Amino acid sequence: MMPAQELSRFLPARRMRGLQPTLIRQFFERALPDSINFGLGEPDLPTPQFLRDEAARISRDEQNGYTSHPGIPELRDKIAEQYPHLGLPRTGVVVTCGSQEAMTDAFLCVVDEGDEVLLPDPSFPAYDACTRIAQGKPVYYRMPAESDFGFDISHFRSQITERTKAAVVISPSNPTGRILTLDDLTQIAEALEGTGIWLISDEIYSDLYFGDRPRSASEFYDRTIIVSGLSKSLSMTGWRLGWAACKDPEMINAIQVLHGFTTVCTSTITQKASLIAWTPEAEAAKQHARDVYRERGRFLVDLFETEMGLHATSPEGAFYTMLDVRSLGDDIEVAEKCLQGRVVTVPGVAFGNEAKGFLRISFCNTEERMAEGVRRMKQALIN
Amino acid sequence: MMPAQELSRFLPARRMRGLQPTLIRQFFERALPDSINFGLGEPDLPTPQFLRDEAARISRDEQNGYTSHPGIPELRDKIAEQYPHLGLPRTGVVVTCGSQEAMTDAFLCVVDEGDEVLLPDPSFPAYDACTRIAQGKPVYYRMPAESDFGFDISHFRSQITERTKAAVVISPSNPTGRILTLDDLTQIAEALEGTGIWLISDEIYSDLYFGDRPRSASEFYDRTIIVSGLSKSLSMTGWRLGWAACKDPEMINAIQVLHGFTTVCTSTITQKASLIAWTPEAEAAKQHARDVYRERGRFLVDLFETEMGLHATSPEGAFYTMLDVRSLGDDIEVAEKCLQGRVVTVPGVAFGNEAKGFLRISFCNTEERMAEGVRRMKQALIN
Repeated sequence: MMPAQELSRFLPARRMRGLQPTLIRQFFERALPDSINFGLGEPDLPTPQFLRDEAARISRDEQNGYTSHPGIPELRDKIAEQYPHLGLPRTGVVVTCGSQEAMTDAFLCVVDEGDEVLLPDPSFPAYDACTRIAQGKPVYYRMPAESDFGFDISHFRSQITERTKAAVVISPSNPTGRILTLDDLTQIAEALEGTGIWLISDEIYSDLYFGDRPRSASEFYDRTIIVSGLSKSLSMTGWRLGWAACKDPEMINAIQVLHGFTTVCTSTITQKASLIAWTPEAEAAKQHARDVYRERGRFLVDLFETEMGLHATSPEGAFYTMLDVRSLGDDIEVAEKCLQGRVVTVPGVAFGNEAKGFLRISFCNTEERMAEGVRRMKQALIN
Repeated sequence: MMPAQELSRFLPARRMRGLQPTLIRQFFERALPDSINFGLGEPDLPTPQFLRDEAARISRDEQNGYTSHPGIPELRDKIAEQYPHLGLPRTGVVVTCGSQEAMTDAFLCVVDEGDEVLLPDPSFPAYDACTRIAQGKPVYYRMPAESDFGFDISHFRSQITERTKAAVVISPSNPTGRILTLDDLTQIAEALEGTGIWLISDEIYSDLYFGDRPRSASEFYDRTIIVSGLSKSLSMTGWRLGWAACKDPEMINAIQVLHGFTTVCTSTITQKASLIAWTPEAEAAKQHARDVYRERGRFLVDLFETEMGLHATSPEGAFYTMLDVRSLGDDIEVAEKCLQGRVVTVPGVAFGNEAKGFLRISFCNTEERMAEGVRRMKQALIN
């Protein structure tokens, strides 16, 4: 045996090497006091009181032991009903610790070492991380900046190879706020049909749309794993209620088995309270969120135009817009200047090369705060 | 491209192949109505009311957004204080969705494809599953039935090879209720010293002991990752409060990064409420649990002896005893007969070959229910 002093430093398992905290987080952690935060991926609307009261009742009056691994049966039924086109049985749904767990479980169930995974550029960096954790190889398809980050079927098709095992779509998109159209989804399904490729559809923002309700990729392509949750539409980020849903019984069974070993189950208090997340009262809360974010998005995009002469993408859903700052220089440098001017933004490059020269701006803020944020940005960047 | 009808059935990623729901669960799911459940791994004592009231207050009155990935700072401080011998900074702790997430995160951070992992036989089957998910190879060291499942340093040493990357210990043990002694832990540390092997110490039952407080493996061996939580000592299984703690900053950083992608954070309501899980009131609740389970364990072991003439191991902690049914036949067949007689038990072989011929009996039941269970077992097995 080697003497202790010759022990090498800890080298983590290969799947973990090179994984870093995201650039997003690095910017957050350096925010100055009293900053306006345009960087958040978290609703600022309060969690509806009826959900909070229900959780309080459950915490106080009930015992909250383990649920079955895939979640409370009635909750799985309610989730399955969200996808009438799939005719899902209860067993087609696994409740997870937020949509992030569902995403990671899906990757680990699908992707083997060396498999290629198609990811949108730009997109949330967790997909890249999940691909690497599963020891796959991220391959990016462009959502071109020149078309306001819309979908480009020709580039998507060109990235498919014999090694492609999975592809990720997200609609409405983090970071762009764009929604995949019926045409986009039909084209994606046509491109994938017969390949055996699994489509992982991130629908975490699907209740936050400003025009027509977004369609689910699962309407067009059978080998789709839906990943979603309640965090964004009901301001329940810290409650951790997510799910995976899939028509293929063997796939969802694999996810259920893995989930039993990753987390056992998510909070029972959260699961029980979420049984009332599809009542008329809850639907009204989701509609309210849509109305608020739609107005804020318009307000903010207009303000960037009128106050700073800058173009921002017109958001179709979620609560993000991409602000074009190419005229002002490198996006990391611009975001750094904003940070010094007490405004947190996220440089586009944090989401991929396609978004270089842009900032992701979230509108989880009151109009008053957003107006102050734009004023500070103008001062930091233009005056 | 292949036409769709020729697509092969879904074959999950290699890491998932052959993983099955545990034998434990298969027995649970076939329980007859009104069964006495000796199979549970979950406390039947209620969660202390002061914790439930606190969670109710937090749910009702506070916003509960994401916490930082590794958890609420003050909670990490309280957890770090549990291990004074390590002098852990806050950054030495990551709060997870139950101890199961901490376990899986640790495996994925340490184990590469082909690495060997030493696991106790018998032990909870999740270790075997985690090893396979990380694409490692489980190698078992015997906790011999002939010494009431006590630790055997010679067999432990004999299983270490150049490919051993990690080893797991659990004390108090699920399924045996045995505690590793100071001698055992010293011998383990000596065997591992200088090898670079990581020791994963499952301490989820560490607050449930009936004699002296169990020692932590981390007192004796630096490369120890502690996995623990509040589920068992405060009857908080469905609340999902676990943690990983480690002295090595690079190791705990890897776990923190992975955790950010597996679950982001566990329930914020649970985290905030858990800030009062180390008050004098909470310590009194833990002491009460120890007192109750100690008495129940004695009661049940005596009952098996006097009523059925069967030997059960004398539990030192947790809430399990191993009942020797070798005189009655194969443990799966014996457990099956119990099931038909409306008593749920778990056949020992579910935990490894060493426990063949035994049943794991949990005493998460009132004395009255346990007496009725033994009466039914006697009728099913002996009369």
